[in-house]
Amino acid sequence: MHLDARGLKGHQMADAEPRLTGGRTRIDFQTDPSRYRHWKLELDGEVATLLMDVDEKGALFEGYELKLNSYDLGVDIELADALERLRFEHPEVRVILLRSAKPRVFCAGANIRMLAAATHAHKVNFCKFTNETRNGIEDASEASGLKTICVINGTGAGGGYELALAADHIVLVDDGSSAVSLPELPLLAVLPGTGGLTRLTDKRKVRRDHADVFCTTEEGIKGKRAVDWRLVDEVVPNSKLEECVARRAREFSAKSRRPAGARGIKLDPLTRARSDGGTEYGSLSVELARAERRATVTLRGPAAPAPRSAADMVTQGADFWPLRLARELDDAILDIRANELSIAAIVFKSSGDPHLALAYDAFLDANKDHWLAREIRALWKRVLKRVDLTSRSLVALVEPGSCFAGTLAELALATDRSYMLIGARAGDNRPPAAVALAEVNFGAYPMSNGLSRLASRFLADPADLERARAERGKLLEAQAAERLGLITFARDDIDWDDEVRVFLEERASFSADGLTGLEANLRFGGPETMESKIFARLTAWQNWIFQRPNAVGAEGALRRYGTGQKPNFDTRRV
Amino acid sequence: MHLDARGLKGHQMADAEPRLTGGRTRIDFQTDPSRYRHWKLELDGEVATLLMDVDEKGALFEGYELKLNSYDLGVDIELADALERLRFEHPEVRVILLRSAKPRVFCAGANIRMLAAATHAHKVNFCKFTNETRNGIEDASEASGLKTICVINGTGAGGGYELALAADHIVLVDDGSSAVSLPELPLLAVLPGTGGLTRLTDKRKVRRDHADVFCTTEEGIKGKRAVDWRLVDEVVPNSKLEECVARRAREFSAKSRRPAGARGIKLDPLTRARSDGGTEYGSLSVELARAERRATVTLRGPAAPAPRSAADMVTQGADFWPLRLARELDDAILDIRANELSIAAIVFKSSGDPHLALAYDAFLDANKDHWLAREIRALWKRVLKRVDLTSRSLVALVEPGSCFAGTLAELALATDRSYMLIGARAGDNRPPAAVALAEVNFGAYPMSNGLSRLASRFLADPADLERARAERGKLLEAQAAERLGLITFARDDIDWDDEVRVFLEERASFSADGLTGLEANLRFGGPETMESKIFARLTAWQNWIFQRPNAVGAEGALRRYGTGQKPNFDTRRV
Repeated sequence: MHLDARGLKGHQMADAEPRLTGGRTRIDFQTDPSRYRHWKLELDGEVATLLMDVDEKGALFEGYELKLNSYDLGVDIELADALERLRFEHPEVRVILLRSAKPRVFCAGANIRMLAAATHAHKVNFCKFTNETRNGIEDASEASGLKTICVINGTGAGGGYELALAADHIVLVDDGSSAVSLPELPLLAVLPGTGGLTRLTDKRKVRRDHADVFCTTEEGIKGKRAVDWRLVDEVVPNSKLEECVARRAREFSAKSRRPAGARGIKLDPLTRARSDGGTEYGSLSVELARAERRATVTLRGPAAPAPRSAADMVTQGADFWPLRLARELDDAILDIRANELSIAAIVFKSSGDPHLALAYDAFLDANKDHWLAREIRALWKRVLKRVDLTSRSLVALVEPGSCFAGTLAELALATDRSYMLIGARAGDNRPPAAVALAEVNFGAYPMSNGLSRLASRFLADPADLERARAERGKLLEAQAAERLGLITFARDDIDWDDEVRVFLEERASFSADGLTGLEANLRFGGPETMESKIFARLTAWQNWIFQRPNAVGAEGALRRYGTGQKPNFDTRRV
Repeated sequence: MHLDARGLKGHQMADAEPRLTGGRTRIDFQTDPSRYRHWKLELDGEVATLLMDVDEKGALFEGYELKLNSYDLGVDIELADALERLRFEHPEVRVILLRSAKPRVFCAGANIRMLAAATHAHKVNFCKFTNETRNGIEDASEASGLKTICVINGTGAGGGYELALAADHIVLVDDGSSAVSLPELPLLAVLPGTGGLTRLTDKRKVRRDHADVFCTTEEGIKGKRAVDWRLVDEVVPNSKLEECVARRAREFSAKSRRPAGARGIKLDPLTRARSDGGTEYGSLSVELARAERRATVTLRGPAAPAPRSAADMVTQGADFWPLRLARELDDAILDIRANELSIAAIVFKSSGDPHLALAYDAFLDANKDHWLAREIRALWKRVLKRVDLTSRSLVALVEPGSCFAGTLAELALATDRSYMLIGARAGDNRPPAAVALAEVNFGAYPMSNGLSRLASRFLADPADLERARAERGKLLEAQAAERLGLITFARDDIDWDDEVRVFLEERASFSADGLTGLEANLRFGGPETMESKIFARLTAWQNWIFQRPNAVGAEGALRRYGTGQKPNFDTRRV
């Protein structure tokens, strides 16, 4: 059986990924402003301007050009990077002006030729990442008081308008031609799938019949009607645009909670040593067992005690253990998602001193009003949500020497299933494995459904949550952890190897798609929020449509767009 | 272009439906106990026993046998009918015992050979109807106090256990072999899609890791662990089964609010005159314009004043206008869904005297504590939910002579878009069209998201809801209705024909799947409930999986099941 670099078997190449440009063999989620090709970040005190100026020749894959500020995953990776840097490197920034550097177009949305040529897997991964980036814009507003004002001067179409929808405020120029639109259905037979439909109904609360008209009107809506229908917040003539934008920037800045006079920290490039067998980051390693379709992610606890003061934390900057580990974990997950498609299960392990890890959580609790502590906690929240939304089976193996304590315990709680070893291993003189909860496990890291992972786990009986809360700070060995419901199975050394091996083999034998659907349902019990609706109702329907011949077939709308030929539809409603 | 009886173009026949048995050309959703082949209804005072005893030879389509109490849509149509009859014909029944008449098997779930051979459209329609039936079991419990106890003696697998999950109480026999299971993923690479995953997490609040183990364990779970993991409510040895069931029946009966001493009404067969151009029911007609892919459903207001007393309503029985119309509408919608696949839009029209219609709503309000009035309102609630979940574009045309008042106004509010004529038509001496709201529009008919259609419509500003509430009972002409936000567009006679025609033509030109996804998102703004999660998160993922080669491809698990050959999976996780 021939496996190519990305782990695809020969017979799967029919749905093969187009080639990456520039001789790349992996999609890299790390970048920095010196390498941006599509965005310009201009800083002016409390106001940053994020200018979209997509380089037509800077596509991620071969075969298309990024005209009219259309985007692909590469453009979005830069946007996500810019947002992270504004949060960590520029705490003085309170307002982002999201604008286009191109005349007569804000953004034309996702590049259609890219979508038409992409594999199903890439379409799904692309939409997931762009959704996470837009949720990140809203998280910056909510968690950090970093507000975004979007200025649409020209066309804001499809994904372009969806990007605007993530902002706190949308200003549309009233010039007789600037318009917002979601033309995906009439033009391409797909959905506005980057949160657009959900933000229309749930964020902007557009009336359903108005939304129906809007989403079926190719040319979109402009001027007063766009305000009346709640599609934008205001329309202004070009002559008053800059004055209006400056006024709104002042208003939002005045409401922001971002710190006065703080200096940011530099997000240094991650150190990554890649080999065929995985990646070594420093606080984290990824070991790839491709034949077994398994990635083992080992998180390392802190090597030194928590700093004595917030000032020390700032001095440590990107080397501060919780920040470093969160960034490494984020990159590792994104890398597996995009580049290791045949990995079935991600196995989380950890190593280190649980007491030290708990001390870092206590330090962040004690400094929770410090801007950097707040940003680090918010980053962990987003990274853990990224884990929840990763369509691979998630497993935790809790063994002697591990460090699933506080923030790291969240990873065990995020898994589909966890195994914990009872007692010591023959020939291993380390103490038995223990997990430990901390205050941080009871609300600091809500899932996209709005609940903590423990609350989601203990939906049946709130008393279970209280029982777990009473054990904060204690090292809980396997049988205690099992009694408290924190792990799935406690197993002794005799059963461990066989049981874990059989489980992982079985998991790898199941249908990849079936598991994706199963996990997407079982992971999110209880309430839904706008955010979880985006990844459930909207994304699942879009993924379905991304499989339907009316969109992606040879005669489908996505493939025929721009060819001059009309799509040929199967008219049956399903 | 050749169109067969179901409106399929020649090139669509590749995914053609297997032939219906018994020379049938349409799926008929009407039945009655004298025609049941799969269920036995035994009445014993307050307790009814609904015995599943599927006739292997009684399949709806050719090509499979219904072994081991497996079911197809035909089996479920009988179940839905039996439940309706218990509600209307037997108000004295307080508890349903849901049991199998076969030894060693409760129910093996949806028939796999049926699923393997079915078109995508049939799989989706089948799952939707079975979901609605199970939701109906829960609605009987909640709205009528008609409780269901499910007794599993033997195998309750897949859809069999999902049926049990709809009950108020599940008793599993403890005999060392009786077990519940959801083996869909390991056996068939599909999801337990009839609400199973959502009821596990949201109704029974099974811990997510336990649910993960359960759903990946082919043989299922039995005995004490089934109780510990909240999968069933109790296990009892065979020797104590009947005593236990009788005790539970008494307990649930004592808690029921169903009336003492009431006599039911007979649900007479609907009168339906079918022709190629549609169906005439009596209070409702369906006109099919297949070339235009349009069905026009005209609802007729009452022909006589509301009865004077609840006793008169009971005497009228199935002829009582609101009941008759609800049953006819339900059948019409189900018929279009299953038998007219290429109909793109359902256009609702109405005719009659709005004052008379409002009088019926006032009558039902005044008698809301009467069991029959309660059942009729609950039936309308379910039928309106069925409309919401119908994957066709829904349109209301409000014209002179129409009767969109009270309950009938809900249909206009259920549409994706409504047009209302301003003033009179040339040559038509009827007064201008008017709509009218009543108390019933403000909570009696919640959508599956838990909100009334008006509250869903006015999510942005509760003041809009209050403004509408203040206009209850008034006849609102087009411009007033438009100002209140009750209709989408008010148009005068000059523009009407062209605008409506262009809209309907455009709608029919769009991708069928794109519209399904769009409407499924825009219709359900705001909160999600367990019920809406079933139709959104769960169903959308299942529909996706029902398109994926790992399940439905020639080498997929659904097609290879029972052949002795293992499925061949594309291992990429998406």
